[in-house]
Amino acid sequence: MTADIISIGDELLIGQVINTNASWIAGQFNLAGIGISRITAISDQKEHIINTLNEASRRSEIILITGGLGPTKDDITKETLCEYFNTKLVFNETVFENIKELFGKRGFDISELNRKQAEVPENCIPVKNINGTAPGMWFEKEGKVYISMPGVPFEMKSMVSDHIIPKLLQKFDIGAIVHKTILTQGLPESVLAKKIEDWEDNLPDSIKLAYLPQPGIVRLRLSTSGKDKAKLEENIKIEIQKLKKIIPDSIFGFDNEKLYEIIGSLLQEKNQTLSTAESCTGGYIAHLITSVAGSSEYFKGSVVAYANETKENILGVRDKSLVEYGAVSEQVAVEMAEGVKSKLKTDYAIAVTGIAGPGGGTPEKPVGTTWIAIATPQKTIVKHFQMGEHRERNIRRTALTALGMLRRELV
Amino acid sequence: MTADIISIGDELLIGQVINTNASWIAGQFNLAGIGISRITAISDQKEHIINTLNEASRRSEIILITGGLGPTKDDITKETLCEYFNTKLVFNETVFENIKELFGKRGFDISELNRKQAEVPENCIPVKNINGTAPGMWFEKEGKVYISMPGVPFEMKSMVSDHIIPKLLQKFDIGAIVHKTILTQGLPESVLAKKIEDWEDNLPDSIKLAYLPQPGIVRLRLSTSGKDKAKLEENIKIEIQKLKKIIPDSIFGFDNEKLYEIIGSLLQEKNQTLSTAESCTGGYIAHLITSVAGSSEYFKGSVVAYANETKENILGVRDKSLVEYGAVSEQVAVEMAEGVKSKLKTDYAIAVTGIAGPGGGTPEKPVGTTWIAIATPQKTIVKHFQMGEHRERNIRRTALTALGMLRRELV
Repeated sequence: MTADIISIGDELLIGQVINTNASWIAGQFNLAGIGISRITAISDQKEHIINTLNEASRRSEIILITGGLGPTKDDITKETLCEYFNTKLVFNETVFENIKELFGKRGFDISELNRKQAEVPENCIPVKNINGTAPGMWFEKEGKVYISMPGVPFEMKSMVSDHIIPKLLQKFDIGAIVHKTILTQGLPESVLAKKIEDWEDNLPDSIKLAYLPQPGIVRLRLSTSGKDKAKLEENIKIEIQKLKKIIPDSIFGFDNEKLYEIIGSLLQEKNQTLSTAESCTGGYIAHLITSVAGSSEYFKGSVVAYANETKENILGVRDKSLVEYGAVSEQVAVEMAEGVKSKLKTDYAIAVTGIAGPGGGTPEKPVGTTWIAIATPQKTIVKHFQMGEHRERNIRRTALTALGMLRRELV
Repeated sequence: MTADIISIGDELLIGQVINTNASWIAGQFNLAGIGISRITAISDQKEHIINTLNEASRRSEIILITGGLGPTKDDITKETLCEYFNTKLVFNETVFENIKELFGKRGFDISELNRKQAEVPENCIPVKNINGTAPGMWFEKEGKVYISMPGVPFEMKSMVSDHIIPKLLQKFDIGAIVHKTILTQGLPESVLAKKIEDWEDNLPDSIKLAYLPQPGIVRLRLSTSGKDKAKLEENIKIEIQKLKKIIPDSIFGFDNEKLYEIIGSLLQEKNQTLSTAESCTGGYIAHLITSVAGSSEYFKGSVVAYANETKENILGVRDKSLVEYGAVSEQVAVEMAEGVKSKLKTDYAIAVTGIAGPGGGTPEKPVGTTWIAIATPQKTIVKHFQMGEHRERNIRRTALTALGMLRRELV
């Protein structure tokens, strides 16, 4: 069984909007065990919509349509669906109630256009839109399912997750699918793969493993399917317990957790504070930490010490260390961490110094050479890394690696 | 005349990769005056490719194919194109020379697989890939053009810009198209539109204007088409000159220039230096500035002063100012700017203090309240803003607004 995705909208065909809706739906459907046969983006024209529906229904059992449901001129999809299913628009009281409720919350008056939005093809089952006024529409014809949804991502997404996928799984008796993503850090993909080889080889046939690497992080996704959801979840849990014993230091979280959010929670639990001293990352670590609402509870600040004199004057790095070992050195990383911890009076501190590139490398210290130091209430640890040549990736990997080192000190 | 885009790759249909290639091509083609009729993403299977080619060629004069040209198992596209065009693969010396040259640069040995990459369908004109080993392929059949390109974005992009669009414009005698994007800052879209209304109304009919707003920036794109490219460029230039007189302070650059790159160039020209003191932006301004290679030439560092005591201890903000006016105030912004400028011994300094949200707002100082100060060698200027409620947008808008204020002091 496969699905076709049809994305309607001129904005897609002039390159104004990237079709992230289709990718997101494809990802969700694949995770639910339904493959996507084709993704088609077409313009807001009746004959294009009809042709594409005809083609898609020859290929797939499920046809998903997004876009073209605006209240005004764009409302061509609904009329076109009436023509395709040989039916007519009828006023739907339940849909109208939803629109009135949404407008009530926002304090707007209902217009004639809104009343028109409550009209749906007579043969469809409306799908409630909790985030907007355009309802979803579920059609069935000759054993196939057609679903039309708005193109606004957050309206479409909640429909798909909360309503459409569960209903499809039920209708087509696909069964339950369980996924769990394990977030790891500190081991390159190849080293990690070697380390967990035996565990992987001994996974039950019903559980599949996927490696999903990102700069500085490797995600491991376990997937399994069957009839009994609770049993599937239990099976996955058992394997994760085994994995935790093999790489206890590398697992930092699950699913969509962010490393800087986890660090924030750990600091808040301990009621302790953090500061950072950044050279090559140029403020990116502070930016990640402060992207979390409420981070002012535990983050006191950062000194971005790009110039040597800033390292000396603000952080108290010794001139001797800079001259003797250079700005990118173990000694300077340690002094930066201890300096910022003392100056900003925090319990923990991160310091990074490195050559982000593309310039500035030497034979002894090539581009990508990086030192990271973590100061804790008890001690300071420091490590050397070779981060690579690409400036942006280098900055990201350094930031995530530093946050990972801090996390290990916090747990 | 229209084009169809066919994107080949299973990774698109499982939602692992977003189809940014198709959006980018659509944008470039529209700018060149060629509309896109349909975008289709399909899997790496021969019958899917053949069917889609048949459908597309009934619709469009130009058929663009990306993906499926890898050296190994993915190489199904090339074989399929041979079948579609009823031809066979032949070894192409020019393509092989390009592969050898690329491998020579990287110091790799040539393998049998690489030799195979130099085989192309006999009836195609190979398109040189300056960034990779898979050549593009240009076919013509019954007045229609089919172009197959690799899926790697930066390989595909240079082919499209440098070779394919110019060749299509020539072949189909579409004429020249000239676009120029004017980057503005400091005026909200509605205010800007009012201010330049007369200018817009008096634009020649041949020149079209598009508003392209982004958080903190409004881009104005002028487009015109005709036969004589030099004349078109001259016409656009004349209108930009007129616009410069109406909003001299708001235009900061053109096309793809970045505000923080422009600031870097201005500081380097003057041989002067910059530091920043960031509260609500949490290091994001420093991150933008240091994302530019070579920024260590003019950027000495930043103090991310999230806690009040950091503002006092490191930046020298007076306790009296914090108590009397609060951390988010004109006085504190000024003292932060002057403090960091003096501590880091720079010519210029940016300081921002605000309530990024979602918490921390009060009736007097709601979320989004922001003060930005710019210290120059002569003076310190300070301004109040209301940035909005969304934390991430708030941080971005504040950073771009602060950089914009600095730019005005530098020119």
